[in-house]
Amino acid sequence: MSVIRNILNSRSSKDGNFFIALQKILGFKPKDISHYQKAFTHRSLNQKDKLGNAVNFERMEFLGDAMLSAIIAAYLFKTVPGGNEGYLTKMRSKIVSRKHLNELGKDLNLIEFVQTNIPKDQFGANIHGNLFEALIGAIYGDRGYKYAKKFVYERVINPYVDIEQLEGKVISYKSLLIEWCQKTKKTFNYEVYEDSGNEEVKHFAVKLRIDDRVVAKARATSKKKAEEQASKRAYYALQDKIDIE
Amino acid sequence: MSVIRNILNSRSSKDGNFFIALQKILGFKPKDISHYQKAFTHRSLNQKDKLGNAVNFERMEFLGDAMLSAIIAAYLFKTVPGGNEGYLTKMRSKIVSRKHLNELGKDLNLIEFVQTNIPKDQFGANIHGNLFEALIGAIYGDRGYKYAKKFVYERVINPYVDIEQLEGKVISYKSLLIEWCQKTKKTFNYEVYEDSGNEEVKHFAVKLRIDDRVVAKARATSKKKAEEQASKRAYYALQDKIDIE
Repeated sequence: MSVIRNILNSRSSKDGNFFIALQKILGFKPKDISHYQKAFTHRSLNQKDKLGNAVNFERMEFLGDAMLSAIIAAYLFKTVPGGNEGYLTKMRSKIVSRKHLNELGKDLNLIEFVQTNIPKDQFGANIHGNLFEALIGAIYGDRGYKYAKKFVYERVINPYVDIEQLEGKVISYKSLLIEWCQKTKKTFNYEVYEDSGNEEVKHFAVKLRIDDRVVAKARATSKKKAEEQASKRAYYALQDKIDIE
Repeated sequence: MSVIRNILNSRSSKDGNFFIALQKILGFKPKDISHYQKAFTHRSLNQKDKLGNAVNFERMEFLGDAMLSAIIAAYLFKTVPGGNEGYLTKMRSKIVSRKHLNELGKDLNLIEFVQTNIPKDQFGANIHGNLFEALIGAIYGDRGYKYAKKFVYERVINPYVDIEQLEGKVISYKSLLIEWCQKTKKTFNYEVYEDSGNEEVKHFAVKLRIDDRVVAKARATSKKKAEEQASKRAYYALQDKIDIE
């Protein structure tokens, strides 16, 4: 009996940890955790439901992929009123590229949640993007389109989608800013001032100083992204200046 | 002045007719008709908005295509719990096939609404499906995901999507039923008993009699579809019998 109780306890405490970690990533409370459990179940477990249907994240990935595509389509439709069908299609492919989705999944460290029978280090790079899509599918299943949309805005669009950058007009705001500083003989300095190591998702905060004055701050899941974000903010804040000189 | 007034009057009465016809198809009142006007504007008009952006249904089509894919994905995910990712993808392609979308657009006679500078008889078959997708895009723009989903259920999934038929397990319920009648020496008769010719969308109603008893009725936008629908209903009503003999 005590063995069973221990197993049950350890499972429920594991579920509890999963719930808490998940809530941090989602930004809201999951209603039905079973959707998320499916989203992190690898086929190697050979899990089946009561009716004998295979349970793994691949179906969730299909659902999440479709929702992500629709949400990005609606975002682009609204944001780029001058873009024709071909342009919108091309921009969407860039945003939901395998590479980008892998980065997003990796940043959130989703692989940590995977239940699998094969060692995690044997997964290829695509596991990250697949889990990210599956997570979006689970959110849709749990809370519907509105929450899936909210999540995609918070985790994909707001932090990372920049139409100008996607169009290749701006490769990197950091290089743009450095170039301007050199041209105008200004000093610049990026300072990482916080690394909240005990959060589920690591964050880096960066202060950008120009001529010893802090002109922008940003926080992101990698030092590079935080620097780019701070540069972008500074760029827009200083844009009149940059354009004039 | 009277010329201008006449033009204005005729345009607003045209808009009024469009609004009424649209409402019948949608099953709800449009909030902002401009979305639907865009959905039925052909590029040959060279229409532009105030900012100089091209206005035509192609952008709406992009949006509607994405929404339709997502809605069908969610439907299949829920309805076929035993289908893996590949199966769900395949089933979705069948449902949103160009041919099927063209049929759907044609049944609703959407081409009637198109504003164009080229003669409508010069459009290819795909115009019907393109307009159908654009209409879904307009619904999303006007009323959001929930209404787009409702429309897709009412106009695509409920009347036409049959997983068994899509899987090729059942080619046609009508032939299944006829076969059974012949085998069991029963008479059968399909009677078209109503053709509401003055509605925006033509409908055909069919009564299916077996041994002179009405066993099923159905209503659809073509005689063939109504017969198939009535056969399907009869098939399910008689299924125990059919399976036994």
